[in-house]
Amino acid sequence: MNLYTRTGDQGQTNVIGARVDKDDPRVEAYGTIDELNAYIGYARTFLTDKAFQDIYEELEKIQHHLFDCGSDIAVVYEKQKHPFKTTEDMIRFLEERIDHYVEEAPALEKFILPGGTEAASVLHIARTAARRAERLIVSLMKEVKIHHPVLIYVNRLSDYLFAAARVVNYRLNVKDVEYERSGKVFRTHNSKKN
Amino acid sequence: MNLYTRTGDQGQTNVIGARVDKDDPRVEAYGTIDELNAYIGYARTFLTDKAFQDIYEELEKIQHHLFDCGSDIAVVYEKQKHPFKTTEDMIRFLEERIDHYVEEAPALEKFILPGGTEAASVLHIARTAARRAERLIVSLMKEVKIHHPVLIYVNRLSDYLFAAARVVNYRLNVKDVEYERSGKVFRTHNSKKN
Amino acid sequence: MNLYTRTGDQGQTNVIGARVDKDDPRVEAYGTIDELNAYIGYARTFLTDKAFQDIYEELEKIQHHLFDCGSDIAVVYEKQKHPFKTTEDMIRFLEERIDHYVEEAPALEKFILPGGTEAASVLHIARTAARRAERLIVSLMKEVKIHHPVLIYVNRLSDYLFAAARVVNYRLNVKDVEYERSGKVFRTHNSKKN
Ligand code: B12
Ligand code: B12
Ligand code: B12
Ligand SMILES: C[C@H]1O[C@@H](n2cnc3c(N)ncnc32)[C@H](O)[C@@H]1O
Ligand SMILES: C[C@H]1O[C@@H](n2cnc3c(N)ncnc32)[C@H](O)[C@@H]1O
Ligand SMILES: C[C@H]1O[C@@H](n2cnc3c(N)ncnc32)[C@H](O)[C@@H]1O
Ligand SMILES: [Mg+2]
Ligand SMILES: [Mg+2]
Ligand SMILES: [Mg+2]
Repeated sequence: MNLYTRTGDQGQTNVIGARVDKDDPRVEAYGTIDELNAYIGYARTFLTDKAFQDIYEELEKIQHHLFDCGSDIAVVYEKQKHPFKTTEDMIRFLEERIDHYVEEAPALEKFILPGGTEAASVLHIARTAARRAERLIVSLMKEVKIHHPVLIYVNRLSDYLFAAARVVNYRLNVKDVEYERSGKVFRTHNSKKN
Repeated sequence: MNLYTRTGDQGQTNVIGARVDKDDPRVEAYGTIDELNAYIGYARTFLTDKAFQDIYEELEKIQHHLFDCGSDIAVVYEKQKHPFKTTEDMIRFLEERIDHYVEEAPALEKFILPGGTEAASVLHIARTAARRAERLIVSLMKEVKIHHPVLIYVNRLSDYLFAAARVVNYRLNVKDVEYERSGKVFRTHNSKKN
Repeated sequence: MNLYTRTGDQGQTNVIGARVDKDDPRVEAYGTIDELNAYIGYARTFLTDKAFQDIYEELEKIQHHLFDCGSDIAVVYEKQKHPFKTTEDMIRFLEERIDHYVEEAPALEKFILPGGTEAASVLHIARTAARRAERLIVSLMKEVKIHHPVLIYVNRLSDYLFAAARVVNYRLNVKDVEYERSGKVFRTHNSKKN
């Protein structure tokens, strides 16, 4: 097999349904989802202990989901032939897990420093990569129509990664360090949020 | 507590004092400071040995500082109610430490390959993330007024991370590899620099 | 030596041949090559075992190459005084190694999840950083003339990193996981490719 095809050497490439410049917002967006996916793959290498089996398995599932998200934005919306892959169910799966992990980890009022254990640190890196991907999806949406659940999935994923990072530290008895000049930014009641 | 609020699912979010698109340059800038902060958190996990206590503790201090920087640019300048958090003192702190570590590590004339020990490698990654954040702050400054010390702090931080990476390798007896086709780019005299 | 010069504190800096804003596309491009270089330095720390001597040494060579690429785009094309450093030979070197590793690793039809061993995971992260750098070089080319082999080198490098990641997992008996809803995307015949 020839892995490289030399067809991208002039700075253009194929998305599903069009030929575009490699710095096209569509390519930026799914390229960053690929990057995020790589961080999650890396995070999993620190979570092989039995104590993290839940998170370990969920992260693999999420890796498949991220390919679903990538496929859905790699295709030109108007030319899509198959049903989109990103579903409401995938979002609900994340929400259920977030609620669960928020419950397990100690309550939170202030921002915490990203870090602690290796696994949690890499989950925090992945969290910020998810947010970078989300910003690029928002830019993409200003140019072309996309399958909206992709944006919601990636938004929720950064909260999942935050919750998972906290639980990992908690299970390893490593206390998250609060930002020392933080206000009480996390609202514990179900009041209006932004 | 509900960690996710669903209010960002349409691609907009709140900064302090306004509602903006998630790809707003302000969000790009503090989102990347958050990413940088996560790399520093990760770097610290490799620096728990007594021999690195100085750097380990400084990096925690820097993580708090980065939240200060983030707060200062998350707020719309004209609507700031509290004093800004990023100070000249924080910059002087970095400068003092840089001078100290430059003295400790072997003298340098040529570019070095980022790498060596794990700790130094991650510090180099953080260094390049600091520079990415700096570029985004420069873009932001073209759009809105910001608290200028934030830019200087992040600029200096990348030099701190370079100096710290070199010292870590040095203390572990790992020689930095010089870029083999490098000119003598580092000026050892206090001549004019750019 | 004074590492910091304070001359960049207003958001401008020197490339070779001009003074520019720090968010200039040229600075974005070589700044991201620097970031990619840092990931490769990090990947090497996981490849010190004899079984990976080939990849370990190739990655050091590639780190030098990336400085060559960086130099070539740091200089204003029209003001270049020395011959460019990035050569066709460097590209052929990558192609030869890719063909070799594609042969060694198990045949591939579907996308795989980035991950597996630590070394492979970090190689996948580097792969996606190479692709991010490539996108920024494409943006740069729309603004100014650049030495074209740089683009080709960075394009090929992402394929090298993919092939190397697969070989590392293979040598460690870790099976790559296929994306479960993937089509047969990798073409095994030498048919037309995009
Ligand atoms: C988009 C894309 C990517 C995206 C993937 C997007 C995502 N999903 O996140 C990203 C950026 C990650 C990517 C990465 C890479 N890619 Co790519 N990629 C493509 C591209 C443009 C489309 C592939 C694709 O999805 N085809 C669409 C359809 C047919 O596949 P599908 O969506 O999976 O649909 C099938 C099934 O899923 C199913 N299906 C469809 N919808 C649904 C819905 C449900 C519910 C279900 C169950 C099933 C189902 O039916 C379909 C038919 O089989 C192709 C080029 C092209 N135009 O074909 C290159 C291509 C496959 N990539 C290529 C390469 C080299 C790579 C990389 C190695 C590059 C690198 N160095 O990093 C990596 C490998 C990544 C990995 N981990 O394996 C090469 C392969 C060359 C070769 N030898 O054949 C190609 C051919 C481009 C080229 N250079 O010519 N890639
Ligand atoms: C900016 C911001 C961020 C920034 C932080 C910026 C920075 N500092 O670097 C970043 C991007 C890092 C961030 C991340 C996250 N955030 Co946020 N964030 C906000 C935002 C917009 C403002 C928070 C804030 O700083 N408030 C300003 C004031 C009140 O606080 P303050 O600056 O700390 O000021 C206080 C003190 O510091 C003191 N003070 C002020 N000035 C000075 C000066 C000195 C010298 C001193 C000593 C004291 C002092 O007085 C103030 C009053 O108490 C809020 C939404 C909102 N508009 O409130 C969301 C918000 C808090 N975030 C939220 C979330 C979910 C997160 C993340 C989990 C998202 C994610 N998945 O990654 C992470 C968590 C990060 C972490 N490590 O803990 C949610 C929380 C939801 C909830 N359940 O309540 C909110 C409410 C947004 C939302 N969705 O509705 N966030
Ligand atoms: C471009 C650049 C970078 C690029 C490097 C680009 C690349 N190659 O990838 C990047 C972004 C990586 C970089 C990083 C850093 N840099 Co810098 N960089 C520069 C800059 C603008 C140009 C340096 C340069 O390449 N000079 C060009 C020529 C003279 O060098 P050359 O290409 O290597 O050419 C020589 C040889 O290679 C040979 N040659 C030329 N062509 C060919 C061809 C062949 C085939 C061969 C064999 C030889 C050969 O002849 C030449 C003459 O000796 C200078 C400022 C300036 N304008 O000088 C700052 C500068 C050197 N950097 C500086 C700093 C501080 C750094 C960082 C520490 C910043 C940080 N915190 O991260 C890091 C250190 C990185 C490291 N790993 O060592 C400072 C040093 C301050 C000081 N005390 O002297 C400078 C002076 C900028 C400043 N602030 O004033 N930098
Ligand atoms: C927690 C805070 O983070 C900011 N925010 C929301 N989405 C993103 C994103 N994708 N990237 C960076 N910052 C974001 C908003 O300001 C929110 O209130
Ligand atoms: C060392 C060299 O790095 C470049 N430089 C300065 N600031 C940044 C940044 N934030 N990102 C990338 N490159 C930068 C300039 O060209 C400087 O001279
Ligand atoms: C494998 C697929 O990846 C996409 N592609 C090609 N080059 C890049 C890049 N630099 N960054 C992100 N995606 C890219 C194209 O769509 C190609 O077909
Ligand atoms: Mg969000
Ligand atoms: Mg600087
Ligand atoms: Mg390519």
